[in-house]
Amino acid sequence: MSVPARAGNVTRTRLTAVELGDGRKRTADALATEEPLEIRIEAPGMEQRAVAVTMRTPGSDFELAAGFLRTEGIVAATRDIATVRYCAVPRAEQQYNVVTVALTRSYEAELLQRNFYTTSSCGVCGKASLDSIAVRCAPVAAGPALAETVVVALPDRLREAQRVFDRTGGLHAAGLFDTAGTLLELREDVGRHNAVDKLVGRALLAGELPLSERVLMVSGRLSFEIVQKAAVAGIPIVCAVSAPSSLAVDAGRRFGMTLVGFLRGSRFNIYTNAERITSE
Amino acid sequence: MSVPARAGNVTRTRLTAVELGDGRKRTADALATEEPLEIRIEAPGMEQRAVAVTMRTPGSDFELAAGFLRTEGIVAATRDIATVRYCAVPRAEQQYNVVTVALTRSYEAELLQRNFYTTSSCGVCGKASLDSIAVRCAPVAAGPALAETVVVALPDRLREAQRVFDRTGGLHAAGLFDTAGTLLELREDVGRHNAVDKLVGRALLAGELPLSERVLMVSGRLSFEIVQKAAVAGIPIVCAVSAPSSLAVDAGRRFGMTLVGFLRGSRFNIYTNAERITSE
Repeated sequence: MSVPARAGNVTRTRLTAVELGDGRKRTADALATEEPLEIRIEAPGMEQRAVAVTMRTPGSDFELAAGFLRTEGIVAATRDIATVRYCAVPRAEQQYNVVTVALTRSYEAELLQRNFYTTSSCGVCGKASLDSIAVRCAPVAAGPALAETVVVALPDRLREAQRVFDRTGGLHAAGLFDTAGTLLELREDVGRHNAVDKLVGRALLAGELPLSERVLMVSGRLSFEIVQKAAVAGIPIVCAVSAPSSLAVDAGRRFGMTLVGFLRGSRFNIYTNAERITSE
Repeated sequence: MSVPARAGNVTRTRLTAVELGDGRKRTADALATEEPLEIRIEAPGMEQRAVAVTMRTPGSDFELAAGFLRTEGIVAATRDIATVRYCAVPRAEQQYNVVTVALTRSYEAELLQRNFYTTSSCGVCGKASLDSIAVRCAPVAAGPALAETVVVALPDRLREAQRVFDRTGGLHAAGLFDTAGTLLELREDVGRHNAVDKLVGRALLAGELPLSERVLMVSGRLSFEIVQKAAVAGIPIVCAVSAPSSLAVDAGRRFGMTLVGFLRGSRFNIYTNAERITSE
């Protein structure tokens, strides 16, 4: 299965730059491209159907589609996916905005109900949200250990590797590191959840899930959705530049993950399972 | 219709604070609360049904539900809403996580299809996304004018007014200003789209839409989703601390809105319809 790289993640625009007391000038700058991606699935004996439209930055679209299906619980393993392809559509400009994932076996139609919280026996609350994810999480390994000195080096390594961020200021980054602090994969997107789905999808397509020895580092805040996706992928350590939410911390605790936030300079906070972060 | 204020937007947590070379200490801090909210609708002669679950920060839940229904095109006007209420549910902790909006008349079931892009005649692309919104946008007024000196003052006024941000670092803010730069309303949420929906919902419930003389200022980036929601509410000027996406700028151009980004210190960029920003 090939996953083509695509350009188009930057769009040029004309703009008026204003500096108070110093007048205006017409200039040009690069914007992060945002375009809809429709994700479709098909399976033996079942009709093709659209399961989601996400606003994303083009690039790694096959990975995004595969990762989304995994983190939403629609596929469970690499072997569930036969092929991933762009769709033939009548107009050229839409050609790369529809991805179809062909499954190797039929799926349960009820999994396509995205509002999965409502189907929980416990109703609508944080605990129900956690329960609903638990069923599709890979077990999080007790290890690995990560040195404090490695933790504080992650933000700079993520920023250095960002190809687009500095040009547009509009992209979230998600990086997958090993426990020595080496950046293995980087994905960027206008949507932070998409950047993580692209990482998870790459690993799924490569048969590398669960990511038991990996560290996820994200450029922004740590929401429930990010921790949920990391939990499904079996990632034991998640670090963020900014703050976690209450439910993100609840999820980290529930799934045995280590969550690090406010990672700036030589300081950071460990919110859950601090034993994985070592001081030597 | 009363919209009760609620506490609960901050959750205390224990954490381990690390400073490299200076050891660890156990301490406590405040996190932005994140909890699911299920939005239900009911209408004369139609069964009650859930239309969405959004992860949000509790507070202004009625406004969030009403704003979501407006910006998604399920309700068109204040008169379409009869009542908004929390649901009676068996468990106390879920009591404030389900909001039911009773409509005064029946709705088109097809509007509940959230993936509205897929129903567009043009397929899946940026233009189709814009077309699908155009049908539910209030007309954006040619005015108003906003002075450069007012523009540069907006970020500080937004930050000063944020009650929770400084304590948790985890909340997005959306502020509604008049053209003199006076902050009229502020809403905060872990989801930036929710903060805007809360503002729009407040105006909808108060019968104040369209917001033709107002300025929206958001704390982060400017995505398509934010511009879309502002367009539906008829807000002519949208400002952001950080960068817009390509489709956000396309939407601003298409709907005749003025978009300002990278608003920092005495500098900012105007991406569309610069004539509303005046230099005297």
